[in-house]
Amino acid sequence: MVPAPLRDLADRPDRCCLNTATLGHREPIAVTAQRVAAAGFGWITPWRREIDERQPAREAAAIRAAGLRVRSYCRTAYLAHASEAARRQAVDDNRRALDTAAALGARELIAVVGGLADGSRDIDGSRAQILRGLEALMPAIESTGVAIALEPLHPFYTADRSLLNTIAQAQAWCETLDPEGRYFGIAVDAYHVWWDPLLAPSIAGAGPRFRALHVSDWLRHTQEPLLDRGMMGDGVVDLRRLRAMVEATGFDGPVEVEIFSRDRWWKEDPDVVLRTCRERLDTVC
Amino acid sequence: MVPAPLRDLADRPDRCCLNTATLGHREPIAVTAQRVAAAGFGWITPWRREIDERQPAREAAAIRAAGLRVRSYCRTAYLAHASEAARRQAVDDNRRALDTAAALGARELIAVVGGLADGSRDIDGSRAQILRGLEALMPAIESTGVAIALEPLHPFYTADRSLLNTIAQAQAWCETLDPEGRYFGIAVDAYHVWWDPLLAPSIAGAGPRFRALHVSDWLRHTQEPLLDRGMMGDGVVDLRRLRAMVEATGFDGPVEVEIFSRDRWWKEDPDVVLRTCRERLDTVC
Repeated sequence: MVPAPLRDLADRPDRCCLNTATLGHREPIAVTAQRVAAAGFGWITPWRREIDERQPAREAAAIRAAGLRVRSYCRTAYLAHASEAARRQAVDDNRRALDTAAALGARELIAVVGGLADGSRDIDGSRAQILRGLEALMPAIESTGVAIALEPLHPFYTADRSLLNTIAQAQAWCETLDPEGRYFGIAVDAYHVWWDPLLAPSIAGAGPRFRALHVSDWLRHTQEPLLDRGMMGDGVVDLRRLRAMVEATGFDGPVEVEIFSRDRWWKEDPDVVLRTCRERLDTVC
Repeated sequence: MVPAPLRDLADRPDRCCLNTATLGHREPIAVTAQRVAAAGFGWITPWRREIDERQPAREAAAIRAAGLRVRSYCRTAYLAHASEAARRQAVDDNRRALDTAAALGARELIAVVGGLADGSRDIDGSRAQILRGLEALMPAIESTGVAIALEPLHPFYTADRSLLNTIAQAQAWCETLDPEGRYFGIAVDAYHVWWDPLLAPSIAGAGPRFRALHVSDWLRHTQEPLLDRGMMGDGVVDLRRLRAMVEATGFDGPVEVEIFSRDRWWKEDPDVVLRTCRERLDTVC
């Protein structure tokens, strides 16, 4: 099943990242960072809602003091809108996110690009708006040194969250926007892409574009595709196979746990969640 | 927006089909058939649960008496299973469905191929089981004269209902199983495929394989992807664009309404549902 030897994650905090969505944003980032470091992670990916963007240096210091590095920053505002003013506002907001990401020392801003513009059925037109919005961020990417990682979302979210839904599509957008690979890369999330019949060739074809690898699991009989993700090993995704494919392209970033789980893991003691995540990284990822 | 002139559906019952799932299977097929014909549909696609497979000739006569023709028959049993016995049982069951479809005068049996075998994470292995199960049906397709229309389902269903999720994948399976196009075709359902970034080239590439075109709508903020489909025009899908693409390949079958809507349309008076469907076929499809 596994096409190539996988990097060992055991006792390697430098290869393990925790996306704070996994803990449900219940505590201040300084507390979260301490817990995450204690559980054996070397990296953290925070969300905008838990960072005070007026004083990012203070937040960055708290994360550093816990012994962690910031990997990515979550996430962009949606880019397709009915009015030009709303589109411009989204671009401005994303510029601020890039500034904060830079202050935190993040390598990339994760892009969730948004769905159809309000009231629109024009899927091609909304995709074109998104591409223009991403293009408008290139000077800010250049000046901050923070790249954007385009994250394809599961097609369940096409209407309202993301018109970017496969790795091959993300790769095509990267090539259109940035043929030299300086500004845009791809974030692969197992939950979003595991079903794709073109998964293996798409990953092989995206080569050095991968900037993030997110893991969680798809529960076999999930009814709720937003906040009902499974812990790695509790669902149907062959995570080792996915990681092997991504690592075979040369990806050497950390494996990042991101679990949205309102009714199960967000109700659990944060240290239990983190310990379970860390163990499952070793045993099933 | 519309690349080619569309066939006119107004006053053309011969171009309009009603899939009985739209009415929630609340009444006997004979009653349903009368309502469907009265609403201006010339075709009906029934489900196995409402057909007495011990006396299909009687059911066929009731449908004919209402003035309708049977278009397709829904649907196959899932084909990937942990045991060889269960896989054989599924094939036998699908053979019986083909027999009934023939007795009803249906042109094709709709295939919902099934998800991962119980307890399995082996997506390629389960897909291979499904292909073997479909292949095993070829003698029965030959003897009954009823084709199988492979229906790609939305990737929300990959784990538990269908490992076939895009038109391009369905086309590849058709070519593998049946290069001459005698046994296997494709059923396109707007709800399942509208999100696909490769929709236009996939449809163009599938050419004469299309045997059914199902319409409903994707509600922008749907939370429940099984039984919360929208009436055509109430959601985000550009149905005219989809129909134009499918008709441009030469498809000349009826446009078939299939709406699973537990909390809205299944609670509505069946004649109101049918009248609304028939109107929306003319105004938005």
